[in-house]
Order: sequence, then C-alpha cells, then structure tokens
Amino acid sequence: MPAPRVPHIMTLADLTVPQINKVITHAHYQRATSLPWLAPATRLSKDADDKKKEQPKRMPSQSLFNKSIALLFNKRSTRTRVSAETASVLLGGRALFLGREDIQLGVNETVRDSARVIGGFCQGIFARVGEQAEIDELAQYSPVPVLNALSDLWHPTQILADILTLHDHAHLFTDSPPPPPSKRINPPAPLPPLTIAWVGDSNNILHDMLVSYPRLGHKLRVATPGKEEYQCPRLVRERVEGLGIEIGKEEGKGPGQIFWTEDPREAVKGADVVVTDTWVSMGQEEQKAQRLRDFAGYQVTEALCREGGAKDNWKFMHCLPRKGEEVDDEVFYGPRSLVFPESDNRKWTIMALFDLLFGKWELHPEQLYKLEKKMASKSESTTEDSQ
Amino acid sequence: MPAPRVPHIMTLADLTVPQINKVITHAHYQRATSLPWLAPATRLSKDADDKKKEQPKRMPSQSLFNKSIALLFNKRSTRTRVSAETASVLLGGRALFLGREDIQLGVNETVRDSARVIGGFCQGIFARVGEQAEIDELAQYSPVPVLNALSDLWHPTQILADILTLHDHAHLFTDSPPPPPSKRINPPAPLPPLTIAWVGDSNNILHDMLVSYPRLGHKLRVATPGKEEYQCPRLVRERVEGLGIEIGKEEGKGPGQIFWTEDPREAVKGADVVVTDTWVSMGQEEQKAQRLRDFAGYQVTEALCREGGAKDNWKFMHCLPRKGEEVDDEVFYGPRSLVFPESDNRKWTIMALFDLLFGKWELHPEQLYKLEKKMASKSESTTEDSQ
Amino acid sequence: MPAPRVPHIMTLADLTVPQINKVITHAHYQRATSLPWLAPATRLSKDADDKKKEQPKRMPSQSLFNKSIALLFNKRSTRTRVSAETASVLLGGRALFLGREDIQLGVNETVRDSARVIGGFCQGIFARVGEQAEIDELAQYSPVPVLNALSDLWHPTQILADILTLHDHAHLFTDSPPPPPSKRINPPAPLPPLTIAWVGDSNNILHDMLVSYPRLGHKLRVATPGKEEYQCPRLVRERVEGLGIEIGKEEGKGPGQIFWTEDPREAVKGADVVVTDTWVSMGQEEQKAQRLRDFAGYQVTEALCREGGAKDNWKFMHCLPRKGEEVDDEVFYGPRSLVFPESDNRKWTIMALFDLLFGKWELHPEQLYKLEKKMASKSESTTEDSQ
Repeated sequence: MPAPRVPHIMTLADLTVPQINKVITHAHYQRATSLPWLAPATRLSKDADDKKKEQPKRMPSQSLFNKSIALLFNKRSTRTRVSAETASVLLGGRALFLGREDIQLGVNETVRDSARVIGGFCQGIFARVGEQAEIDELAQYSPVPVLNALSDLWHPTQILADILTLHDHAHLFTDSPPPPPSKRINPPAPLPPLTIAWVGDSNNILHDMLVSYPRLGHKLRVATPGKEEYQCPRLVRERVEGLGIEIGKEEGKGPGQIFWTEDPREAVKGADVVVTDTWVSMGQEEQKAQRLRDFAGYQVTEALCREGGAKDNWKFMHCLPRKGEEVDDEVFYGPRSLVFPESDNRKWTIMALFDLLFGKWELHPEQLYKLEKKMASKSESTTEDSQ
Repeated sequence: MPAPRVPHIMTLADLTVPQINKVITHAHYQRATSLPWLAPATRLSKDADDKKKEQPKRMPSQSLFNKSIALLFNKRSTRTRVSAETASVLLGGRALFLGREDIQLGVNETVRDSARVIGGFCQGIFARVGEQAEIDELAQYSPVPVLNALSDLWHPTQILADILTLHDHAHLFTDSPPPPPSKRINPPAPLPPLTIAWVGDSNNILHDMLVSYPRLGHKLRVATPGKEEYQCPRLVRERVEGLGIEIGKEEGKGPGQIFWTEDPREAVKGADVVVTDTWVSMGQEEQKAQRLRDFAGYQVTEALCREGGAKDNWKFMHCLPRKGEEVDDEVFYGPRSLVFPESDNRKWTIMALFDLLFGKWELHPEQLYKLEKKMASKSESTTEDSQ
Repeated sequence: MPAPRVPHIMTLADLTVPQINKVITHAHYQRATSLPWLAPATRLSKDADDKKKEQPKRMPSQSLFNKSIALLFNKRSTRTRVSAETASVLLGGRALFLGREDIQLGVNETVRDSARVIGGFCQGIFARVGEQAEIDELAQYSPVPVLNALSDLWHPTQILADILTLHDHAHLFTDSPPPPPSKRINPPAPLPPLTIAWVGDSNNILHDMLVSYPRLGHKLRVATPGKEEYQCPRLVRERVEGLGIEIGKEEGKGPGQIFWTEDPREAVKGADVVVTDTWVSMGQEEQKAQRLRDFAGYQVTEALCREGGAKDNWKFMHCLPRKGEEVDDEVFYGPRSLVFPESDNRKWTIMALFDLLFGKWELHPEQLYKLEKKMASKSESTTEDSQ
C-alpha cells in the first residue's frame, strides 16, 4: 500500500461540499460532547438523585492523544490561537504556539527546512504566515498536514465557524420556533437558502465566502469600494471560477452567480445576513485615513439596511476584533448580532478540523468516498459513530 | 433553577473568613496529594518490599480535566505564572499564557469584547492587567470566573500563600516541637494569634494583608514612609473599614485595629513575623533614587528588629523577587527566612483557588452555606472529602 | 536514607560510556513505542480484519505524569524547544517554555533565587542560558535536575541525537543490507569504529564530540582555521584531557587521540562522516564578513571530500539551522545527508534524557551501578523492561 498523500487545507475551495458538511456536522457533535466537560464541576449544587439521573459523559475524539500541533503564527491572533489551543486540549493533544518571537519563517532557516523539521516533531501545522505563497511552500515540504490559520488570501476556519453559526440559528430564518431541548444529539438543523451580503473590502474572509456559500446553495451579494485595490485578486477569482461560480455586476439568478457592486445599499437588498470586517487590518494602520474615506457609507447600521431593503429580521456577523467604523454599537451589541456565538464556534470548527485533518487524515477525496460508502451502508442514524 | 452568578475574586476582602480557611485547608490537602506524584519515579532505589508497602497515590482534584484557563498577563511575573501553569497540570487542565506580546487588552479590541470572547473559549481567567479598574471590567463581562493574579491595588494569591506558610510553621510560634510525620493527612496546624509587622510602602501585598490578617485574629503593625504617596489608597481604606477594621496611629488593643506608623522600629515591636517587599517595583525604576531616600532606615536587618523589640524568634517573609535594599543577606538567607517555602506555597494556594473557583465555582456565599451545612452533618473527619 | 544528590548534565563528559549507551538505547525504545501513537488515527483505511491483527500499543514511559519541566531559554532555538515540548507530551508531562520575554535570569532576581524558586515549582530545568557559568550556578542552587540545552561551551543533546542517527544508519557503514522489518523492538544496531571529521570552528557541537566519540571507539579528525579564536577553549581542553583523550597535530593512532589541523582536506581524510555547523551563529552577525574570509575553503562539498580523500560513501551531518556557506545544496539535500533524521532524533534523545534524568533521577553513578547489577541478574532480554 503506498503511503497516503499528505492532506492540506488552504481554503474551503480545497474541500468538496460533502466534506464541508462533514466538518460542520462533526463540529456540532464534538461541541455537544465537549460542553458537559466544561461546565463547573460543582459537587454541592447536586443532590444524590440528580447525580443518579446524570448521563455518563462521552469523551470527545482523542485522535490527538500523545500528539502535538505546531501553531506557526507570524502575527498575533487571539481568537484563532486560543480556540486552537483549547480545542487541542479536548482532543487529548497539545498545541504548541510559536509566535514571531519564537520562529521567523524564512529568516534563520529556509521555509523548506523548517517545514521538514517541525513536521518531524509535530503531527500537524496550523499556520498564520502572511503571504499565501509562504504557506503553500510550507505545505509542499511538510510531512504532516498543514492547515491555513489565516493568510492574505484565505481564512477557511472563520467561514466554517460562520456556517455552523447559521445552522445554530436556522430557526431565525424560517420563522419557526427554536428546537426543543433534547437528550439526543441531533444533527445540525438544515438551513433554508439564504441571501448573504458582504459589505467591506475583498479580504480573506470574503474570499472563503466566495468559494463556499454559492456551492452550499446561498446567494451572495458583495459591496466593495470601486478602487482597484478593493477588487477580488486574480488568484482568488480563478479559484472561484474554477468551481463554476460567476462574479458579475448583474443581479444573479441563483447561488451560482455572485452579485458584486460598489453600493452597500444594493448589496444588502433582501439579505438574511449582513457580514463585515474591519477596514483597517493589522499592518494597514498607516493607510487608515485614506481607507476611512474610501469606505464612507459602508458602516453597517439599522439605517443602511432599512434603506437598502434587507429582510426585516436580518442578522449580523463579524469575525472580530471589531472596530467602531464598520458597524455601530446598536447593531453590534443588539439582538441581530451573532458575533459572539460566531466567535465561540471558532473553537468547535477548528476542533473538528484538527480531529479530521491532523488526527485522522480523513479529508482526502479518497477517504471521503470511503466515508460516504460507509455511511450509506449503515442505517440512517442520528447519533455520530464512535470516535 | 436560575443560572448561578459567575463568581470572581479580586481581593481576599471578597471572601469570608470561613472561605479563606477553606482555601487554606484545601491547599494543604492538595499539596499532600500532589507531592508523591512529583517525586522522582526511580525504580531502582526501591526493592520489592518497599513497593508493597507503598500507599496507593491519590489523584489530586481533576476539576480542570479537559478545561483551559487563560492567564492574561500584561506584566512579567515568573512566580505567579509558573505556579499557575504547574498547578493546572496537577488539576488535569491547561493554563494558557497570554502575555503582552500575545494580547494587549483594550488596544486592538475593547476589554468588554475580549472578556466575552476569551470567556467563550476558556473556563477561567487569571489576570494580571495593571489597574484594578481594568480587571473589574473584565469580570463584569466575562462568562467565566475571573481571579486577580495581581493588580495595582490587590494581590490575594500571595497572602493566601503567606497564610499557609504561617500554618506550616505554626510550631515555631508556640515553642512546641514540629508535628511528627504521619501517614494520615492532618488538617493544617492551628495558628496562635500572631503579631505581624509590615515594613515597606502601601502596596498590593499590604492591602490584602489589611483585609485578611485582622479578621483571622492576628495583630497587624505597619510602617510606611510619611509622604502621601506611601499611604493607604482611599479605595483600599474603604474596603478595610467596610470589614469593621480600623486603621490608626494609636496602639491597637486587638486584631481589629491596625497600628500604622512612619517608624519601622515601632512597627516591628513584639512582632512574630516581619514582612516586606521591594520598594522599587517594575515600572518604577525611574523613581529609584528618590525612593531609596524615602525608605532610609527601612531595611529589614537583625539590628532593626532588635532595636524595635521584635520577638526573639521573629520570622521573615517576602513575596520575591527580592532586591538587596529592603532586606540584607543575613536575614534573607538565614534561619529566620520563610521566603522559599512561601514561594513554594504560591503553587498550592493557586491550585486550591483554581480548583474551587474555576473548576467547581464553589466560592459563592450560597455555596459556602451549603458547604458548612454538609460539613456539620458529617461526623468530624480529619481527611478531606473525596475530590 | 540520605536524600539523593540532585543529578545534573552539562556535557556528555558528565556521563560514563555505559550511561551514554543507556540513553541511546532508551531513546531507541522510546521512539519505537511512541511512533505508533503518532501515526494518523484513520478509521477508514482499515477493515475489521486489519484491526484484529493490530498489536496493542504500549504507552511510552509516563515518568513525567503530573510533572512540569521549565525550559529556560535566553535565546531562540526551534529544534531544541519543539523537540523538548513534544517529547514531554509523550512522557505525560508538560514543558513550560520561558523565553527571554518571560524571564531574564540574573536581571530582576539573582540566578540563585530563580533556581530555587523555579525548582520549587517544576521537576526539571532544561536551560539554554548563554554562558556555561550561568547554568553552572543554576545547577548549584536548583533542588531539581538541570540539563544543559545549549551553552557557549557544550551541546550534549545534539551529540546524543547524532550518535543515535549513526546507529540508525549503521548498515551504511558496513556495506550490509538494512535490517529487515521486525515485530520485535530490537536494540540499536552496533556501530563499527568510524572516522568522523569536523570542519568548522571550535564550538559547543564540536566540544561534545571531543568528549564522547573517542570514548565510544571512533576516530575524530578536526579542522578549524588557525586563528586563536577558533581553537579549543582551555576549559574544554581540560575536560577532554581529564577523560584521557589527547588532542594533537600528529595523525592519531586510535580513537584516544584526536587529530587537529587547519586544513579541511586533511580532516576529511578517510572519513565515514563529515560534520559541520554554521560559521556565523546567532549573535555573531556583525563578524560575518571576517568569518567568511577566515573559513575560505571550508565549505563541505563533493569536491572537498574527494580531494581530501573521504571514504566513497561518506555521510553528512549538520545540527541545523543550515546556511549556504558551510555546505552546498548538492550535499545538504543529497543522498549523503543525514540531517533530517538527525533532527528527528533530537526529540527521541531529549525524551530519553527527560525520562531518565527528570522523571527518574537515574543518571547518577550509583544508580548506574544498580542498573548494571540488575541487568546482569536478568537473563539476556531484547525487549526493554517495563516502564
């Protein structure tokens, strides 16, 4: 049997739709399994009867037991780092944070040598290294899977968290009541086709939205300022088009066609969800004044969405950290905001990816095929198979 | 049942006397349970007979199993950090150090948002963030317990370590022999009422002494230089007075009245224990020359304590790191010094707090009440109840 | 029974030959036990029959369970750090990285006090602190074992990795086929007497080669430039001579005499293995131009080794990180290169040392004696005794 090809994930464009759904379902189950462990272990608040009735807690997947995952981070990133470290604990493993002070990729040693050396010690590399070319080189020479934690072009783990958050709030989009509490771990609630609007610049968050939402059956409407620098980079456009998705200035007929405009009001028309991000990312501080001018009118507010004709019950998402310019307090801290559940879900989706990619090497196309065959051969089941 | 209020600890003033004693007792037991695990696992030094006689080792409390504790540290703090990280290991959990390079509270993101986000990933926050107002804001928005690791006003974990150290050396203050070694884990030895002297400035260490020692039945005598900046801050004085403790320039009649002077010799009169700290903390280096002048005559030495009339067998405590100005080598490295056991006890008291506060949420007033009822209903027992 | 003396390791000169062999054998077994845990936990690639045939996995030694090891690193060191952290995971323990940002030995607190304090929290100290005098002082006051991770004079863990790597490739030096795969964990393959050449300056890597290879029966040939600064420091020379090893400019007769020259071609004569390191280490960047001139002709290449008369099948080792000056790409990435297996073995030899030194305190001379007696009394066994 030949050694299996090392799987890597740079963007959600690298995953098929069933694989994306597999990750979401897996995150949902891992969360349900993990949460009881994370509750206070208070002995005194329970009487003996309560204890007898308690369900035995199931362990989350322990596929990282005895294993170490390198977090190669050139830039600070609280959410991504802390969710990766805490998720690793639940999987029985250890995330090893290596920041800019600890390792400077390509400075003291070539990226090629570092990839081989770190991949010889660790069982996975979760990398935030700036330029996509650098993480591509890491993956080329690493003997273990590399997962993109954030690059200039892509941010796959954020969009997975967003998709899970939408599933968690599916009842908000269908006017149905939230599902009743249940002892069983049910699969994630199905989502109706949504209209999702992006108001901001063409950054890594948007790029992973472009390659995933249309394939999942949702309509995407995008507003970025007109300047060249805010348009979709060629490399991303090629990946989008390679998936059979069109980007155009005309109103799309369905999810396969992304509507792209300069007018944020046009973008939010009919939106179930409005998404944005800061306009001034780390490293862009010196361009701040210019950027604020370019994004005049882009702040997400009640007024903007009313004028643009968003659905009455539109919801708001943001990857954080948030600055005041791109969304006002009323929306950000108000009942439309899904930003904190979205942040919490960073942990569960990263946990699912760490388990499937680093622990089990199960996100290959060939393994997906096996998975589907196996699933089909089993009777329909609502609880996940044993870890 | 309503969700329990999230418990936080900013100072020992937040704990009742029974709660302080509970933490001390718990630290004592956790230490006794942990030490056998930390000894060298030497196979060869034991023969088969020894092995048979060995007691099976009990596990320390595993209330942090699968859990992660965020250590939010704006300033370097070796003792506090390393004791927190090593204590977490014993509790089955993971402390996640986030230093100034990793997260800058309030810079890239509001404290409010960071509290909610980090509290969504971790099961407790141990914070050293500078100003008390900042950690108060953290606690206000955190969904998980926040424990003050050190602020400008308070340092509760240090004083808990000091109290445990005094109990460990109780025989030194009563002229009785040290307790014989025992297979049973006995409760901490009771302390006679002590006279405790502080010689230094009115800093976070002293402040937590002010709100705890008088309530525990000990007399406190304080010397700080006369300048306004070395006096007790208003916020602290209010907490002290709120506990029914008086601060005055007249000799106190009992532990409820703290004697405060400018003369270090007066402070150490009748002292069982003399405590000090560096006069030049991190961030105050530029004031060093002025401070050294202000503290002339404050160095703790044999001569000072003899002149001031400390008890013959007075003992010395210091939270470390130590500089030479505030205490000479003869005292610091001599037989009066309890500084290294005191340092070791940082670990055990932090372990007890992490277990009770982060693992079990058991330092609520309401839970204390349940605890006392439960304890009363059980027959007197010298071994701790099961973890 | 008196408390055992705390064992420390500063250089391989501190270990006897049987102790060095014990560490190598132990590393070999720990690796064999660990690797099955580190493979992907893929459920789908196996069918039920495969699973039945699987050997139950043995746990690696858990001598660090519940324990913490302090990594005191004044300088960045990816390989040493990451191998120590990942090895600790396998031993059930936790390595706690304390870099220059976290602790500055001797700055805020004396080395003496820090050694006592950190040794009170942790069960071992793995230190990279610059000058050997500093780590000697750490060891003097530490209540727990101190292992030198790298100093200006010594680098013992690197040479242990090199020795294991040579054993792993023993068949290359004897023209015999590689050993067939086996279900049993065999001991490391014995090494024939080798000729090992060093081409570089007299640095910490070379120094630990000087005190170990001759004792293990290998001939050592060294080339350093003629300037005084590239010669062997007095302290090292004394340790070498204390072991009965001579350094001289005449051709040695056997492994007890090290041949030392200025001419790299002379050094590689008859070499089975050629070893080098960068000529410009961290902190020496300002001397780079001068050093490049001094090392003219020292680059390890096919041409150099052919001209010098190395054995036909000479192999190449380098501790990494590598720069281009000291070895060209043809050698470094070619079939002669053992550099990546050598890097991987950093983990296994550090794991063995952490287990034996920190976990079990078993590298005392007196314990070695017990070990040998015990081994002798047991019948010859090819599998290691239970952990």
